[in-house]
Parts: sequence; structure tokens; C-alpha cells
Amino acid sequence: MATDIETVLQANEAFYRAFETLDIRNMDAVWSKADYIKCIHPGWVPRLGWVQVRDGWTTIFNNTSQLRISVCVMETTVRGEIGWVVCQEHLTALSGDRKTEGLVMATNLFERTDGVWRLIHHHGSPVLGPHEEERHSLPMV
Amino acid sequence: MATDIETVLQANEAFYRAFETLDIRNMDAVWSKADYIKCIHPGWVPRLGWVQVRDGWTTIFNNTSQLRISVCVMETTVRGEIGWVVCQEHLTALSGDRKTEGLVMATNLFERTDGVWRLIHHHGSPVLGPHEEERHSLPMV
Repeated sequence: MATDIETVLQANEAFYRAFETLDIRNMDAVWSKADYIKCIHPGWVPRLGWVQVRDGWTTIFNNTSQLRISVCVMETTVRGEIGWVVCQEHLTALSGDRKTEGLVMATNLFERTDGVWRLIHHHGSPVLGPHEEERHSLPMV
Repeated sequence: MATDIETVLQANEAFYRAFETLDIRNMDAVWSKADYIKCIHPGWVPRLGWVQVRDGWTTIFNNTSQLRISVCVMETTVRGEIGWVVCQEHLTALSGDRKTEGLVMATNLFERTDGVWRLIHHHGSPVLGPHEEERHSLPMV
């Protein structure tokens, strides 16, 4: 019998596999459709509710031809029917003939409904290097 | 009788007032000390647990002489004993004789224990302008 932590980690893994396929139908399967779902991509303003969240992903998918994501999980927590994963994403993307790499720190919040964990909140943010971090005593833009 | 949403918003307000005082003792009062608390400042790697979280705040406080924060709440959600606020912080800081301003998008997660909401997770990230957002079809660093 898988533990709560293990099943949340499986849901997190399913999210990133869906992300990599660049197919909104796969994203549709991992996201909750509750009216309080939200998604914050690095540097973007929040998307509230599935219509906005879905629009954000299709914008990304329509401008990306290939994507690989390596995920380093830092910690997973479950409190009742809410669980969250803090992880670092290493993204390698092709947009046309342009290859880009990026590091993103993510908080992914899941809610268990009828025994299934679904994503209700994604907050991704850019990661600065250690020297940049030292320079930013107060985290400013 | 205040609703759950209202009491979570009060806890969120108390967090920012503590932040503005630049006094770690006030931060101590608003944070949970559960072993799963985490704090991600914009561009920083996550701080896990109170010792690391506290160290992050003291680093910021020791390098800031004055701070004003204007908070724009976008949405507040409560699911059982977990509540979270998505908000935009407008920070105006003095570090020595240098004045800086910054916009930060935050996810603040609270847990209610013995009737009191305490902060268990803070994730702050820089906000890019709308033109920058358009350029970043895939959110890369």
C-alpha cells in the first residue's frame, strides 16, 4: 500500500510527464477543475481558474516544439487531503531552432478527491545563482 | 464571527506587518515551527525548517534599514485546516542610503492549529512586465 507521500509524488511525476508531452489533454487529466485552482509561471501574473490556467499552458505548448524536464524533489508534505511538493525543475526546450535551458523552483499543491490527487496550485519561479543570491539581501526584482 | 477566509487574511496581514518591522521576534510569532515549514525568497533556493527559514529572514533584516510593503490580495482559499493566499507585494526598501522598489508574487500557505492560523510555506517570485511575459512563451530564467 503506497503512503500518502508516495501517491502525492506520483501525482507530481504525472504532472511533469504531462508537461513534457506539450499536449493540453494530458494537462487536463492532472489538474483539478475546482474554481480555486491557480497557476503562477515564472515572472507571469497568476492565472485563476481552469480557463485561465489552461490558456497559460496552451500558450507555452504552442511556442515549444520539444521539452525535457528533469525534476529534483526537495520535500513533500501531506496534511489531511492537501499535499505539496517543493522541487527544482531543469528544463531543456526547443522553440523553433532555438534551444534554451532553465532552472525553476516550484511549489505544487495537490488536493485528494475521491482518492485521487489532483493539482490545484502551481507556483514556479526562476532560480538565481549563489553569487546573485548573496547580492540580493532583500529579494527585489 | 469571522469566516475562515477572513481569519486567514488576518494571518496574512500579520505576516506582512511582522515583515515590515524587520524584527525576527515578530516573524517568530507568525510562523509555525512544524518540521515541514519552508520559505522560498525570490531567486533563492528553498529554506527548509525553522532554523533555515529564520536564518533567511535575519539575513534580509540585517541588510535592510527600512521597509514598506503594500499587499494586493488576488485570492484566498481554505480547505479544511489549510488555507492559502495568493498576493502581490509591492516593496519599498532602504538598505543603507540605497532605495529599491520591487514587485513580488507570493503564495502563502497557512495551517490552523488550536484555532490559530500560522504560516507554513512562503513562496515569493519576481514579477516581469507584460512585455517581458509575452517574450517568455516558455518560462525560462
